[in-house]
Amino acid sequence: MPTITIGDYLLTRLKELGIQHIFGVVGDYNLGFLDQIINHAGLEWIGTCNELNGAYASDGYARIKGAGALVTTFGVGELSAMNGIAGAYAESVPVVNIVGTPATTTQKDKMLVHHTLGDGQFMTFAEMYKKVTQTQAFLNAENAAEEIDRALTSCWLYKKPVYIALPTDISYVSIEAAKKPLNLNYPASDPETIKKFIEHAAQIVEKATRPIVLIDLEAQRFPMQSFINDFLQRTGIPFAAMGMGKAIINESHHQFIGVYNGFSRQNVQKYVEQSDCVIAFGLLLSDFNTGGFTSKPNADVTIEIHGYFGRIQQVIYKKISFCDSIPALTKRLAKYQYQGEIVHPLKQKANTPRDIPIRQQWFWQQIASSIEKNTIVIAETGTSTFGTLQMSLPDEITYIAQMLWGSIGYTVGALLGVCVAAAQRPAVLFLGDGSLQVAAQEISTIIRHHLTPTLFLLDNAGYTIERIIHGATMPYQDIQHWNYTELPKIFGNTVWCMRVKTEKELVNALIERNKNKDKMVFITIVLDKMDIPETLSKLGKLMAQRNQYDSKQR
Amino acid sequence: MPTITIGDYLLTRLKELGIQHIFGVVGDYNLGFLDQIINHAGLEWIGTCNELNGAYASDGYARIKGAGALVTTFGVGELSAMNGIAGAYAESVPVVNIVGTPATTTQKDKMLVHHTLGDGQFMTFAEMYKKVTQTQAFLNAENAAEEIDRALTSCWLYKKPVYIALPTDISYVSIEAAKKPLNLNYPASDPETIKKFIEHAAQIVEKATRPIVLIDLEAQRFPMQSFINDFLQRTGIPFAAMGMGKAIINESHHQFIGVYNGFSRQNVQKYVEQSDCVIAFGLLLSDFNTGGFTSKPNADVTIEIHGYFGRIQQVIYKKISFCDSIPALTKRLAKYQYQGEIVHPLKQKANTPRDIPIRQQWFWQQIASSIEKNTIVIAETGTSTFGTLQMSLPDEITYIAQMLWGSIGYTVGALLGVCVAAAQRPAVLFLGDGSLQVAAQEISTIIRHHLTPTLFLLDNAGYTIERIIHGATMPYQDIQHWNYTELPKIFGNTVWCMRVKTEKELVNALIERNKNKDKMVFITIVLDKMDIPETLSKLGKLMAQRNQYDSKQR
Repeated sequence: MPTITIGDYLLTRLKELGIQHIFGVVGDYNLGFLDQIINHAGLEWIGTCNELNGAYASDGYARIKGAGALVTTFGVGELSAMNGIAGAYAESVPVVNIVGTPATTTQKDKMLVHHTLGDGQFMTFAEMYKKVTQTQAFLNAENAAEEIDRALTSCWLYKKPVYIALPTDISYVSIEAAKKPLNLNYPASDPETIKKFIEHAAQIVEKATRPIVLIDLEAQRFPMQSFINDFLQRTGIPFAAMGMGKAIINESHHQFIGVYNGFSRQNVQKYVEQSDCVIAFGLLLSDFNTGGFTSKPNADVTIEIHGYFGRIQQVIYKKISFCDSIPALTKRLAKYQYQGEIVHPLKQKANTPRDIPIRQQWFWQQIASSIEKNTIVIAETGTSTFGTLQMSLPDEITYIAQMLWGSIGYTVGALLGVCVAAAQRPAVLFLGDGSLQVAAQEISTIIRHHLTPTLFLLDNAGYTIERIIHGATMPYQDIQHWNYTELPKIFGNTVWCMRVKTEKELVNALIERNKNKDKMVFITIVLDKMDIPETLSKLGKLMAQRNQYDSKQR
Repeated sequence: MPTITIGDYLLTRLKELGIQHIFGVVGDYNLGFLDQIINHAGLEWIGTCNELNGAYASDGYARIKGAGALVTTFGVGELSAMNGIAGAYAESVPVVNIVGTPATTTQKDKMLVHHTLGDGQFMTFAEMYKKVTQTQAFLNAENAAEEIDRALTSCWLYKKPVYIALPTDISYVSIEAAKKPLNLNYPASDPETIKKFIEHAAQIVEKATRPIVLIDLEAQRFPMQSFINDFLQRTGIPFAAMGMGKAIINESHHQFIGVYNGFSRQNVQKYVEQSDCVIAFGLLLSDFNTGGFTSKPNADVTIEIHGYFGRIQQVIYKKISFCDSIPALTKRLAKYQYQGEIVHPLKQKANTPRDIPIRQQWFWQQIASSIEKNTIVIAETGTSTFGTLQMSLPDEITYIAQMLWGSIGYTVGALLGVCVAAAQRPAVLFLGDGSLQVAAQEISTIIRHHLTPTLFLLDNAGYTIERIIHGATMPYQDIQHWNYTELPKIFGNTVWCMRVKTEKELVNALIERNKNKDKMVFITIVLDKMDIPETLSKLGKLMAQRNQYDSKQR
């Protein structure tokens, strides 16, 4: 019978999830496994400057490829990655978090080794990870194959990170090779429940006069796109996107009415909120995603379709899979055809650039027209998220913004991840200076691997999103001003940098950028401290109210 | 009766611990509290580029000032700081970890807000922190004063980090002001136990012919220095320092024989291991601290004195405080006087510099002579720790190396912390390029506050400590080469940078450095990839053996 080392067994299984690159940081508890990665055909090691950025990179990679993997070392490494893995958990991103742990004998003998708390305990950090991973697997010579399969299947089916602890002495133990590939089929639906659900849903749709489809986060995580496209085509019902659902279905679609939250154009908001039937795919009503809870689709007429359950008027239908429920509803509505009017979003036009300082309102409109089809658009938490939400995007875009978890700095690592995952696609990142400073070193890894994204740095001298919420002129909002234009050149030569202050300078920079497509492009946009996208000031006030910072506000 | 806001109550209490600066990162769940910090007399806010570096800075600050404080925001912020707080826990550093959490009503209503996992749970991250903090306090309008006092007292007495959750709406609630200061007295000893312990210990000392004192980590955390100095003076017994106990007692002391581990000079090792009485203050027998478990003081003749307990020949004496036990033992031994010979460490001499590439063996010897009295010497995990351990240091040094937790990148944040804590003392950091890349941005905060440490960057093109352990030529050990000499200038003007390759260049740079004492000094030392301090190669082999990476090693 063919045998394989445990390390290679794990790597073979990772490849079955579509993983071709593994991110992480070297440590003495993972060196042996790193040898196996380097020597394994079809896999590439991408070392990151630190573990948090590595976690962000594996998250970005997973959003493109369907799964990602991170390798860190026990204690110091895995805890540094914690925030990144928690973000993946919150936003349903399947990342395999592999931690190299001390040798089995070291653990058994409770040795006082480095990277521990000095108490002879080796489960402490894994127990923390239980809170932010779907499944935890502790490999040994006997259980490795079974536990690896269990963890990876869980990661794939639940679209959540999983934790795998790999002791240094286990990687090279030989076990029986896998006889067949992982079973990655989504679970079958309960036939009775799905029948009831479809009938209930169809009756509401058929009675409605102003139905609307809402697209949200999970519609991308669970691969619902083709099912939803079929549904839209067959029913003719118009659709809007939630923030986290932006661009999952092409915005050029003739049934698209716009992005919906309480700050949307009046007709989008009215249409959704006055609808007598909301069909929502993967809905998540979190604060940022709803514009500070200003999105209020009518729960009494909402049909929710999630990965593995449905909900209608507070009745939950368990054990129905999206891959059954969406086609079944489409089929059931074969004779249905929406006949009403569809209000299309306004087409944004680029204006003639002037010799005046750039303001965000102009910037987001202008920059939208420079984005090509098939681009990966990444927006950092803060002004960039709200700026990009109002952009009209071309087709086949992947839009990435961490709107629930909202960890600043996320996008620098994520940019590395998406560029590694899809080096052939254009990638554009918008982020502020405060966020860049959190994670700046990972630009070095992007340059190291000759990746060619465009990074727009919004230099507004500090934490402008926080200024909008509270304490606009307080000194804690200010940061040290770096020479951002020279920074990327510290990391390597293959980068093209430019700093612009006026509309004309930006438009010229965009022309120059097109001559430098073989390099990373880094454009710094100088903006006023208090200049923000229009929608954000309303949201800032809502946030401040909810936080009740001081007695005056209560 | 005088009242005070809860935020100001907390700040007043922090000042009682000697805290004058608070580190951290802005977030919308802590903005109101930050206003209070800015407006509170006698406190300064030091914003860091990211939370992990902020945690490291508060740890470094606490090692100098006796306590430190960190403020982060819920979820994203606190989890980013996790590795830093865990390090403080492992190495017994008292850091007050204050987390701004969502408003009480937001939590009560289980709202789906940003920085949560989207599950309406608000205790998840605090539960993780239970593993790495001594005490957790969740403030509300009723319990705030009591809980703050409980947490801060615990932080002070146990020398461990504590966790304080401060909801946004609680900071400005008025409560009764404190009537008296915190009781920070170390707990009284049990009179019977201490009597027995002292008698047991004294008998062993009096019988011994070759007694030796060992100084370790806790002798600095619990302020044992003056008690130990008295003990040494009165008894005349020679002493050695463990790695983590280096320089706690002046190395010029006429009873000092050297740093002890299995790689010490032969006579130090022999003296300790053949001793018939080891009096150990704050001993921690962890792997790095013992040179890979090569330090083997004889447990059968060891008297251990810890913060709150003693141990003799495996008998544990609980409830005895160091501030009672050390003076009592000194007094009990009033008539005792060690009469034996004392072997003094070799005096290191700087050699005439040559026009040849710098090698580590030469470097550490040379650089030792450039370190002034009263300097704070910080050594990053890796070659720097083992290089500095063999240096002879002048008096009144604080030596900082994270030898148990061993998180690379720690020292960049810690350098910020120690410089803020003691701007008037010279500070010198030694770190490698791999470690710098983890946390490089925090150099910006050092420059921002016009602090003037000297940083020696050991540029050996990657993770040399890992190369020594395993996989010397593997590509995962290599990192992107940055233009290190230009990097600090990106962050600000008040920095003096130099890159040196030869012995002569280094000696010249040290002369130039003395003309730039009003600035941060950043000297890059170019070294060979495989050049290491002598002791480290032995340790690397021991580590590799214990980790049992592959079948050949098993």
